[in-house]
Amino acid sequence: MNETRTLARFIAESSWTEIPPSTRHEGKRALINWLGCALGGCRDESVDVALRAIGPFAGRETASVIGRSERLDPLNAALVNALSSNILDYDDTHMKTVIHPSVPVAAGVMALAEHRQATGVELLHAFILGVEAECRIGNAVSPQHYAAGWHITATCGVFGVAAAAGKLLGLDAQRMTWALGIAATQASGLTAMMGSMSKSYNMAHAAKSGLIAALLAERHFTSSDRAIEAPRGFAHVLAASPKLDEITQRLGETWELSWNAYKPYPCGIVLHAAIDGCLELREAHALTAATIECVEVKLHPLALDLAGKPAPATGLEGKLSAYHALAVALLYGRAGVAEFTDECVRRPEVVSLRCQVVATPDESLDKAAAHVRIALKDGRVVERDVPHAIGSLRKPMSDDALEVKFRELAAAAACKADELIRLVWSLDRIDNVTTLARAAACQPD
Amino acid sequence: MNETRTLARFIAESSWTEIPPSTRHEGKRALINWLGCALGGCRDESVDVALRAIGPFAGRETASVIGRSERLDPLNAALVNALSSNILDYDDTHMKTVIHPSVPVAAGVMALAEHRQATGVELLHAFILGVEAECRIGNAVSPQHYAAGWHITATCGVFGVAAAAGKLLGLDAQRMTWALGIAATQASGLTAMMGSMSKSYNMAHAAKSGLIAALLAERHFTSSDRAIEAPRGFAHVLAASPKLDEITQRLGETWELSWNAYKPYPCGIVLHAAIDGCLELREAHALTAATIECVEVKLHPLALDLAGKPAPATGLEGKLSAYHALAVALLYGRAGVAEFTDECVRRPEVVSLRCQVVATPDESLDKAAAHVRIALKDGRVVERDVPHAIGSLRKPMSDDALEVKFRELAAAAACKADELIRLVWSLDRIDNVTTLARAAACQPD
Repeated sequence: MNETRTLARFIAESSWTEIPPSTRHEGKRALINWLGCALGGCRDESVDVALRAIGPFAGRETASVIGRSERLDPLNAALVNALSSNILDYDDTHMKTVIHPSVPVAAGVMALAEHRQATGVELLHAFILGVEAECRIGNAVSPQHYAAGWHITATCGVFGVAAAAGKLLGLDAQRMTWALGIAATQASGLTAMMGSMSKSYNMAHAAKSGLIAALLAERHFTSSDRAIEAPRGFAHVLAASPKLDEITQRLGETWELSWNAYKPYPCGIVLHAAIDGCLELREAHALTAATIECVEVKLHPLALDLAGKPAPATGLEGKLSAYHALAVALLYGRAGVAEFTDECVRRPEVVSLRCQVVATPDESLDKAAAHVRIALKDGRVVERDVPHAIGSLRKPMSDDALEVKFRELAAAAACKADELIRLVWSLDRIDNVTTLARAAACQPD
Repeated sequence: MNETRTLARFIAESSWTEIPPSTRHEGKRALINWLGCALGGCRDESVDVALRAIGPFAGRETASVIGRSERLDPLNAALVNALSSNILDYDDTHMKTVIHPSVPVAAGVMALAEHRQATGVELLHAFILGVEAECRIGNAVSPQHYAAGWHITATCGVFGVAAAAGKLLGLDAQRMTWALGIAATQASGLTAMMGSMSKSYNMAHAAKSGLIAALLAERHFTSSDRAIEAPRGFAHVLAASPKLDEITQRLGETWELSWNAYKPYPCGIVLHAAIDGCLELREAHALTAATIECVEVKLHPLALDLAGKPAPATGLEGKLSAYHALAVALLYGRAGVAEFTDECVRRPEVVSLRCQVVATPDESLDKAAAHVRIALKDGRVVERDVPHAIGSLRKPMSDDALEVKFRELAAAAACKADELIRLVWSLDRIDNVTTLARAAACQPD
C-alpha cells in the first residue's frame, strides 16, 4: 500500500462538487474562528519580534499580515499569521488528535491564495483538503507521536499546508506526492517549547515550510514517493506503531472537519463545563459576589491536575486555574480574553472570590464534565451538573456564538468585524480572496 | 546539568585567540573543500528548480549564490548554497557521526557574513564554533539517531548554523541558548529522501532554519532554555539513549574539526582504498587497458554489499560500483566527477574493462581497506595492499591535494579558482568577506 500516493491522488483529483455542504460550512466556521484568533493574537510581543527579525529579509509584499499594516511575501505572511493565530490558545481542536487544524493550514493557504488572487471556492476547497490531510496523518501517528514529545499541530500541520497549497497550485498526483514528501522531511516541532514564544513558532515554521514544499514540487523538485509509509519515512521515524490505514480508509466519505471543536473560553478545555455551569447559575439566580458564600466544583482528578492552580500569578497561569476561571465567570458573567490577563488575575475582587472556590476531584465524572454547587449567603444552595461543555462535539458552539467570539477578538485589532464575518460566510461566492485578506489586515485609515 | 546553556555560553564567550592554529587551518581546509563542492554542484538541475521556485519570494539581494550570477537574500542564499554543496556527495565527513559538517554551517554563516560584511576572522571563528556545536550534538545522539532514520547532517546541522550565525551576530549566552532552542524545534530531515532531490534539500532547509533561529533569538524571541536535554527535548525525542555529556565534556580543549575527513573521489568511501591501489599500480607499471588481463580486488563484505553494483546504468550507480570505479582509475589515472557521469558509465572501453574486474569479499580486511592484484597479459602479476585510503584520518588529503580537487570542481563554474584558493588560505587577514563571496559567484564578464 502506498499511502502517500493515495492521499496525494485524492487531493489532486478532488472536485468542489464532491465536498458535502456540511463540510463546506464547517470549513467556514473554522476559518471564522481562526481569523478571530489571529486578530486577537496579532498584537502580541512575539509577533512584533518576529516581524522585526524576519521583515528585513522578506520578499515582494503580495500578502497581508492579519490585523496589522505590514505586508510581506506569502511565505513570511504565512509564518506570522500562523504565529498570531496560536498565541491565545483559543484555536480550534481536532478532538481525535488535539491538533489545532486551522492554525497552520489557514495561514498557509490564505497567504498563497491572496498572492495568486484565488477565488473563495479555491481557498475553501484547498483549506478543507489541507485539514483532511493533516488530521488523517495525525490519526495515523496518534497517540504515541504527541506523547513522545512531538508538537502534533506543527508536525502534521506541515503536510496540511503542503496539501492545501498544492491544491491551490493545481498540482497533479505525482507533484502532490512530492509536496507531501518535502513536507515530511521538514516535519518538526517539540512540545518542550511550551511556555515560550517558540510554542507558537512551531506552527509558524510548519506553515512556511508547507508552502515551500508545494512551491518546490510545482517545479518538479523530487522527494521520496513513499515519504510517510517508507521504513524510514515520517510515520515510522516519528511514531512507535503508526496506523497507516487511517490515512486512506474512507477517503472522500468521511471528513475530519466533523471532529473539529471551538473553544468558547480561552483557557484549559477541562474547565469549560464548570464555567458553563457558573454562567448558567449566575444568570438563573442573578448571582453577585456579595450573595455568594462558597463555590464548590467537582472535576475529574486529571482535570484538576492540569488546571488546578490555586493562586495564579499571571494571565497564562489563570488559564490553568479552576479557581480563577470560576471567579471571573461568576463576577463578570463571561470568561473571555479580557478575563485572562495579568491584570485581571491580580484584581482584588477576583482574588477575593477565588478564595471562596473549593475544588474537589471526583473519579466518577468525565474528564470534560463538571458539577458546580454554590452556597448563597441567604442559606440557599444552587447547583448544576454539566456533562458536556459548550464547544464540545456533543454541544458545538453555534454560528452565532462563533460570531460573538469573533467580535470580541476582532476588537483587539482595528478591523471591520461585521464585514469580515460577512465575507467568510459568503466565501464560496467571492471572486478574489484579496478582498478578504485586505479586510483582515489593519486599515491605515 | 544544563547542556544547552553550557554549550551556548561556550560559543558566546569563545574568543578567537583560544582557537588553536591547527583548528584554524582545518577550518580553512573544510571551507576550501566545501566551496569546491558547491561550485561542482551549482549547475545541477535541482539548483535550477529551487531557484525558480523560491526566487520569486526572495528578499533584498545581499548574498551571493555560489557559482551563479543570481543573488538572493541571505536566508535563501544559505538554502541554495547548502543544496549545491551536498549534491555531488563529495563533501567532508565527521568520522565519529557521518555528519557532513560544512554543508549547512558554511552555507549559513557565509551568507550571513556577506550580508553583514563581516571580517574573515569573524567568519572563520563562527564557522569553527558552528561545526563544534553541530558535531558535539551529533556525538550525543549517535549512533541511534541516524539508524532510526534521521538525516543527521540536517538535524544536527541546524544547531551548527544557529550557533555560527549567533556568534556572528554577537549573541550573549541567553540569546545563544534561545538560538539553539529554536534550532532544536526546527530539527528535521529523513534519510528516506536519499535518491531524490530532497536528500540535499534536507541540508538546505537546515541552513535556512538555523539562520532564522539566530535572527529570531537576536531580537529576544524565546524558546525553552533546555531544548536539548529536557525530557521532551531534542536529544530524548530524536534518540533512544543520548549521551548528553558528549556535548559539554572538554569544551574548548578538543575540537571536532580534527575528526573531519575529505574525499579524494566522489564515490562510496569504501572504494577509496581500492582506487588508491589501482592508481599507484597504474603509475608504477605504466598500465594501460591493453596490458591488463584481469583485476582482482578484495574488500570487506560490507563494503561489497554497499558498493558492489556489477553493471551500473547511471553515474549515480557508478559511485556504488567497485567494478566501475576500478575500471576508470586504471583507464584514465583518475576517478573524479567526470568519471562518474551517466556518459562515462556507458562508455564501451569502461564497460569492457569493468568486465575484467573480479571483486571478492574478505572478512580479514578493515571496512575501509583493500587489496588489489592485477594480472597482466605478459604473465606478470602486480599487487598492492592498501590498509588506509587517502582522505582517511590516518592518511589525510594534503593541502595540495585539496587544491587539485578544488580546481577540478571549480572548472564546472566560470570562476577564478586560484583567486578563491588564495582568499580562503588568507581568510584570517580579510577585512570584508564580501570579496570572497563575490569571487565565488559566477562573474558575468
